[in-house]
Amino acid sequence: MNKRFVTFLPAGVKVEVESGTDLLTAAGKANIEIKAPCGGDGTCGKCAIHLKNGKAKARRESHLAARLMEKGINLACQTLVQDEDLVVEIPKTSAMSKHQVLVDSSPVNAGMSEALSNYLLNVWQLKELLLEKQESPLNGYPLHPLCRSIRLTLPAASLQDNRDDLNRLTMVLRKETKCTDINVPLAIIRDLGEILRADNFKVTVLLSEVGGKAEVIAVEPGHSHRPLYGIAVDIGTTTVAAYLLDLEKGRVVDTAGTHNRQARFGDDVISRIVYAVDETDGLKTIHQAIIDTVNNLVSDILVKHRAIRENDIRVIMTAGNTTMAHLFLGINPKFIRLEPYIPTANFFPVVKAQELGLRVNPDAPVFSYPSVASYVGGDIVSGTLFTNMGKEDAPISLLIDIGTNGEMVLGAGDWLVTCSCSAGPAFEGSGITFGMRAMYGAIERMEIDPQTYEVSYTTINNGRAIGICGSGLIDCLAKLRRTGIIDRAGKFQTSLPTDRMRIGEAGPEFVLVWQDDSDLDRDIIISEADVKNLLRAKGAVFAGIRTMLNVVGFELDSIENVYVAGGFGNYLNIPDAIAIGLLPDIPVQKYKYVGNTSAKGACMALLSQEAWAEANNLASKLTYIELSVGNLFMDEFVSSLFIPHTDLTLFPNVDL
Amino acid sequence: MNKRFVTFLPAGVKVEVESGTDLLTAAGKANIEIKAPCGGDGTCGKCAIHLKNGKAKARRESHLAARLMEKGINLACQTLVQDEDLVVEIPKTSAMSKHQVLVDSSPVNAGMSEALSNYLLNVWQLKELLLEKQESPLNGYPLHPLCRSIRLTLPAASLQDNRDDLNRLTMVLRKETKCTDINVPLAIIRDLGEILRADNFKVTVLLSEVGGKAEVIAVEPGHSHRPLYGIAVDIGTTTVAAYLLDLEKGRVVDTAGTHNRQARFGDDVISRIVYAVDETDGLKTIHQAIIDTVNNLVSDILVKHRAIRENDIRVIMTAGNTTMAHLFLGINPKFIRLEPYIPTANFFPVVKAQELGLRVNPDAPVFSYPSVASYVGGDIVSGTLFTNMGKEDAPISLLIDIGTNGEMVLGAGDWLVTCSCSAGPAFEGSGITFGMRAMYGAIERMEIDPQTYEVSYTTINNGRAIGICGSGLIDCLAKLRRTGIIDRAGKFQTSLPTDRMRIGEAGPEFVLVWQDDSDLDRDIIISEADVKNLLRAKGAVFAGIRTMLNVVGFELDSIENVYVAGGFGNYLNIPDAIAIGLLPDIPVQKYKYVGNTSAKGACMALLSQEAWAEANNLASKLTYIELSVGNLFMDEFVSSLFIPHTDLTLFPNVDL
Ligand code: FES
Ligand SMILES: [Mg+2]
Ligand SMILES: [Mg+2]
Repeated sequence: MNKRFVTFLPAGVKVEVESGTDLLTAAGKANIEIKAPCGGDGTCGKCAIHLKNGKAKARRESHLAARLMEKGINLACQTLVQDEDLVVEIPKTSAMSKHQVLVDSSPVNAGMSEALSNYLLNVWQLKELLLEKQESPLNGYPLHPLCRSIRLTLPAASLQDNRDDLNRLTMVLRKETKCTDINVPLAIIRDLGEILRADNFKVTVLLSEVGGKAEVIAVEPGHSHRPLYGIAVDIGTTTVAAYLLDLEKGRVVDTAGTHNRQARFGDDVISRIVYAVDETDGLKTIHQAIIDTVNNLVSDILVKHRAIRENDIRVIMTAGNTTMAHLFLGINPKFIRLEPYIPTANFFPVVKAQELGLRVNPDAPVFSYPSVASYVGGDIVSGTLFTNMGKEDAPISLLIDIGTNGEMVLGAGDWLVTCSCSAGPAFEGSGITFGMRAMYGAIERMEIDPQTYEVSYTTINNGRAIGICGSGLIDCLAKLRRTGIIDRAGKFQTSLPTDRMRIGEAGPEFVLVWQDDSDLDRDIIISEADVKNLLRAKGAVFAGIRTMLNVVGFELDSIENVYVAGGFGNYLNIPDAIAIGLLPDIPVQKYKYVGNTSAKGACMALLSQEAWAEANNLASKLTYIELSVGNLFMDEFVSSLFIPHTDLTLFPNVDL
Repeated sequence: MNKRFVTFLPAGVKVEVESGTDLLTAAGKANIEIKAPCGGDGTCGKCAIHLKNGKAKARRESHLAARLMEKGINLACQTLVQDEDLVVEIPKTSAMSKHQVLVDSSPVNAGMSEALSNYLLNVWQLKELLLEKQESPLNGYPLHPLCRSIRLTLPAASLQDNRDDLNRLTMVLRKETKCTDINVPLAIIRDLGEILRADNFKVTVLLSEVGGKAEVIAVEPGHSHRPLYGIAVDIGTTTVAAYLLDLEKGRVVDTAGTHNRQARFGDDVISRIVYAVDETDGLKTIHQAIIDTVNNLVSDILVKHRAIRENDIRVIMTAGNTTMAHLFLGINPKFIRLEPYIPTANFFPVVKAQELGLRVNPDAPVFSYPSVASYVGGDIVSGTLFTNMGKEDAPISLLIDIGTNGEMVLGAGDWLVTCSCSAGPAFEGSGITFGMRAMYGAIERMEIDPQTYEVSYTTINNGRAIGICGSGLIDCLAKLRRTGIIDRAGKFQTSLPTDRMRIGEAGPEFVLVWQDDSDLDRDIIISEADVKNLLRAKGAVFAGIRTMLNVVGFELDSIENVYVAGGFGNYLNIPDAIAIGLLPDIPVQKYKYVGNTSAKGACMALLSQEAWAEANNLASKLTYIELSVGNLFMDEFVSSLFIPHTDLTLFPNVDL
């Protein structure tokens, strides 16, 4: 084996490793600690380093690494020593610092990607609200958990009362639960005789009740007072969070969030589906990846609560988009992405934790939030539940969750319509020349001087600029228009008196950051094609909203509340978003950030049978509008490809 | 290792084997074929040999072998060569003969034990009736099998009809089945998308329907026309039979019967329970033994029907007593034998074949006949179904099944009472000095000359007498009384002028067979203590019948039908049984042998949802009378310890 030297800066430590070794491992040999919360999977982006000298090779596995590499950033865990000695600089943000340990009560660290920071901040804020501030996760629903324990004293067996043990138990359960259909699995029946008699017919029965049916999860001798725990999981395509709930007290005990380990198989649901369908054992592998993710979160939480054992976790509730739900349960997702876009299931069976390999009580039932359609999933149903939009007397409201798709719900009480518009990944940085996810070095805010056209900007963690993230792009579009650099159709005004305006290889472009100020070997620009892409993305969302309104015969001004959900929503500048015509021109005070409603709804459903019943009711009630049917959406879309819109009367308060 | 010679007679073949070798193996080495249908387990009794010279050692495992050994009979499979050379005679009945192969269409062979012959004859007669004579196993119920396949053409998915696949399927199933509750297991959902599309939304759905609930067992692409099979199993304590049913044609395809492999752990349910509870892994071992028994029967059948694969068997129905049902499902039977005699369950959950390790389609649901109480099991419920006693307008009938326990059902239509009286194993040969099971050499009929007191008798297979079996004992009791050898209380008239009457070690006894005529080294006698035992057995049965009549306020003459079920019933001499007061004094033409009703009812339930619903209805409806509560039974029992009874008016036609 060939040996090569790697020198780590700024410490100047030199270490000899075999070629083929990755730089994360090499740093470890040099006793230099680099952050790697994803364990070297190439998904967290926290092990970013600068290759100062020498040529290295990228592993072919991480999409994130590949994209960063194009931008001159290397992930230590994904970069392999080859035939040359290397000099590597570890930025402060990637090095483990004492500071980090000190502030560990907040999960957000200086070196984190903004997407993860934002997400973890959400998780943490929710924890703070629910846990430290004792705000109820029930959101108005009664505490009546999906799984509860009942302490019973059964009539003792005698020659006079010689019913069989199972009947003895179920007769009492029927009365206690008002359920007529009570299922006791064979595994429990097998030793029921001993269990009933161990403490003279006193038993503690654990059961989950749903819609008049009860499933017995465990029967234990005596009157047990062990607390009951459940785990609510928000399964996002990018990030996953788990919430440990005390089912009897109705409160969140702790939370943890991390990247979805499926990320190494693709960034978005489509690439995950392609992997699951096309690769050998793809479905099995990608299913296992999310199971591992959840198992790791659970053990991360439990390690902090030594008194709570895996076995004490008696029920799990998950919410995620339709693809995530399929992959979590190991259901073939193939037809989700093929026209006519049919999910295999919208309502999912309850399965036992052991069937999925989840490391909690093996008999814990695992519930999955129901979906509405291939692109309107359980996370949206969960959000609809959280916002109370389906409640009687609810005002007309709009729930909007923007990611690769924009998922929206419009309605009030009895009527609820929903749709999903393919906004494309522009807001997530894809398909834009210098677009990127919200990470180190991404431009997130900018100003353009209307006289000089000079650009000032801020980047995430104040890193040297390497690209623009979603919020930066929305800001950019608004400022380009405000300064007249582009017209309402997104066409560049090439005659402007500034050398920032020029004709590049792909047509007109505007320089946002000169090479010298950037961390790249070229200027950071935005092109006319980029702008068209962004217009399509924002146009799709707005057209979706308009289409729903048309279908139900309402106008924009009848909307009383706009709930902005999800990670992107959290750092979206609402006035900017209205200005470019992404969001409707409605008074800003009617907008409400609702955060991670997927997680919040999952917690609610675990803690309240009534909430879970309503979630299922909502999933049936939500009327899905397929935007690719008919011309309604297409007409609206074409009209929305202007800033803010072809029909200016829709944006009376916007003067761009 | 020591080597010893074994000489086999009559062939005179000599073979050298290591000491420790069993004689079945030794015979094999000598190319002499001995019958061993139980595979050398020591349970079938067919490998009986005579040890002519030398001392051998018995394995300590087989109860049957131990009992036969006392009688001077050795089972080849259970007899081990020790320090001495042996001379062994193989009786014709144990040798494999060409004759046997020729008559193989009837399962009964010359050398078989009578119990097994009888049982197999039952199985075979049933097969003949149902199979060759095309008599319907439905017994009046409609053909509507528990598991059926439906060929569906679902509406194709489109942008206009974009319901999820699961919903698409269940909506149609709801209409087709009239079931509102349709369960599709996750394993089937996982690839449902591909299956629906493989033949353009044409599918064949296999499902089992019970009480408005449907469980989907399989979904296959296209319109499949593979026949559907089910297996009905009668799980007896001693013998087990399997029936292969064509579910669509509603007929029996083939059958097989054998010994219950649990026999090596004890002869009766009590010793099986003791084994299951007291031995390490006892329950697991004894559960596996019955699973193995059923698996062997299934493969015995399938080997004859090459076109039918294990996977084609889609459903299983079992009927057996309560202990057998517990052991089959692996439920701890401990409390069945402890006062107050509580079974863990009377109604059993439906489980998948793979959960039990049954080698049929892994997803086949396995149904178990419901029981009524610890000693009134699914076999009796099955018999009650078969006799139509629970049907509206049914005349008052009595169903009676005599074994170690006498299980009885009395009733008509809406009311049915049942009880189990512990007759003890006297009729099975235990607890009687020369009692034995109905096997080779057992006296089955006898006459006693009223003048000379000389005894003439017939034995099973005309072997030299070695003991008396149940039917012989009933005959014996009747003849002892008729000739005045015993009085009505069973007391021996010791002053009779015959040397057959004498005082033995345990009191008065009567010689049935002199040593010289027997195959033993002593006289075969019946003692006063034996007679008392028999009176207790017959008294318990009759007292049980009387107690049931008392509870419901009817007299003996209101009984219109007496159904005599089970193996023992099949060779019971009814007039004899009435004469000793075992069965009520009712015109003989009202008695009906109904054979193996447990098996017949299991077949009915598999073929007809209506029959299965009625079986469950019967199990709820049957009112169990616990005879050990109160004095009612005890008073009747004491009055029944006479021949035929204390109250002679109950037996107007008996003149003993
Ligand atoms: S450790 Fe390299 S990306 Fe997470
Ligand atoms: Mg989400
Ligand atoms: Mg039987």
